[in-house]
Amino acid sequence: MNVLWIFAHPEQRSLAGSLMTEGLRTLKALGHEHRVSDLYAMDWKAVVDADDFGTAPDERLFVGAEQERAYADGELSADIRREQEKIAWADTLVLHFPLWWFGPPAILKGWFDRVLVQGFGFGIKGPDGRTLRYGDGGLAGKRALIVTSVGARESGFGPRGIHGHLEEVLFPLLHGTFWYTGMAALPPFAVYGADRLTEAGHARSAEALRERLRTLETTPPLPFHHENGGAYDEDLVLRPQFAPGRSGVGVHR
Amino acid sequence: MNVLWIFAHPEQRSLAGSLMTEGLRTLKALGHEHRVSDLYAMDWKAVVDADDFGTAPDERLFVGAEQERAYADGELSADIRREQEKIAWADTLVLHFPLWWFGPPAILKGWFDRVLVQGFGFGIKGPDGRTLRYGDGGLAGKRALIVTSVGARESGFGPRGIHGHLEEVLFPLLHGTFWYTGMAALPPFAVYGADRLTEAGHARSAEALRERLRTLETTPPLPFHHENGGAYDEDLVLRPQFAPGRSGVGVHR
Repeated sequence: MNVLWIFAHPEQRSLAGSLMTEGLRTLKALGHEHRVSDLYAMDWKAVVDADDFGTAPDERLFVGAEQERAYADGELSADIRREQEKIAWADTLVLHFPLWWFGPPAILKGWFDRVLVQGFGFGIKGPDGRTLRYGDGGLAGKRALIVTSVGARESGFGPRGIHGHLEEVLFPLLHGTFWYTGMAALPPFAVYGADRLTEAGHARSAEALRERLRTLETTPPLPFHHENGGAYDEDLVLRPQFAPGRSGVGVHR
Repeated sequence: MNVLWIFAHPEQRSLAGSLMTEGLRTLKALGHEHRVSDLYAMDWKAVVDADDFGTAPDERLFVGAEQERAYADGELSADIRREQEKIAWADTLVLHFPLWWFGPPAILKGWFDRVLVQGFGFGIKGPDGRTLRYGDGGLAGKRALIVTSVGARESGFGPRGIHGHLEEVLFPLLHGTFWYTGMAALPPFAVYGADRLTEAGHARSAEALRERLRTLETTPPLPFHHENGGAYDEDLVLRPQFAPGRSGVGVHR
């Protein structure tokens, strides 16, 4: 299996850094190939702007349209094309980041914003002319795993925990980004209480991560509905027979 | 009222740009003061790194601890301190951005990551020694409004829409950022179908925004529970008498 590990932490000498080292070693021992995008080390440009497409500064910038055009014309900036090439190579993406303000650090958000452009990550039409999204699309067939760390205790991220159930807090990534582009979203892997982790806690986290990597190919992904699988009506609303009487992001699985 | 308008769109000559112009004009006509953080125009640095705190490059960087120390010592970089000063001045924050991958563009995510540091936005202790969060905290008493635009139709963002109910998709901002730091989260304002908006549609959006700004002081915020108000137990789990039998991010209001 080919694994692309995207790392978004400013400090290699961190818990996250040592977990990545451990993770890559494990992948190798399992016989998988891996490549790494260490966004801080690469000095990854986080912000979408006209330089991504070579748009002239006096032209009005339509971001989505320019992304699509520049992708089709092979005119996206070289750093973006390199990431797209790595994604194309990979069977599985690992997104590894500390949870900041309940989402990815800006440098990783900018990786999604800049790399997953229309035509590559989404916006591809199927044989019937419908756009392929949510379970189908540019990255269909791949899997994606979040590896994250949070300072808070696990109970606060449970189904009724104050911070919000982790799978729902991460819905914009799991469903809105991975599943949207066709990738199967694996249950996220989280290290809790990361600020106060003892050596034993660290060892437990490393072992838990190794176990998740051993089952990377077999772990059932989150069972989101396919957009074109019959669960949604023409207005893209979940039909009443699915999760009857319920609402909220939890109904989509 | 003092309003800080934070704008995160790369193109002033966009729907978003003209809505901001309209919004600022409305605020002025209503007798409110405003200041603007136009993040692209400011060339806002999106990425947290050691330069924010003057940490020596060979020192291991503990982001949270360094943010707290540098804030206390007045050593955060000048661009961060200027934003904190604007927030302190403001009664209301308007966060205005196109929804990219179901969240804020990286440049705005980085504004949260860099500006809302421990000691300023959160991590302040109350008289009983408990940390003030979720309804209390560094920014208590302020209000925050999201103004966003999305390409998709409104139905897809409804309570059972495929993209996820907008208020739940934005939970990391509304609850995890605004409410976490003490700010009352107003119901978000969204322009749907923004890519295909007709002139009439644009006029309707502008009028709807004006109406939201006219009622900025009186609109009831989203009724999230206070952390220290009795709704949560010692593990920060919602007590069974609230939203009985339900789970997911929707239970917190």
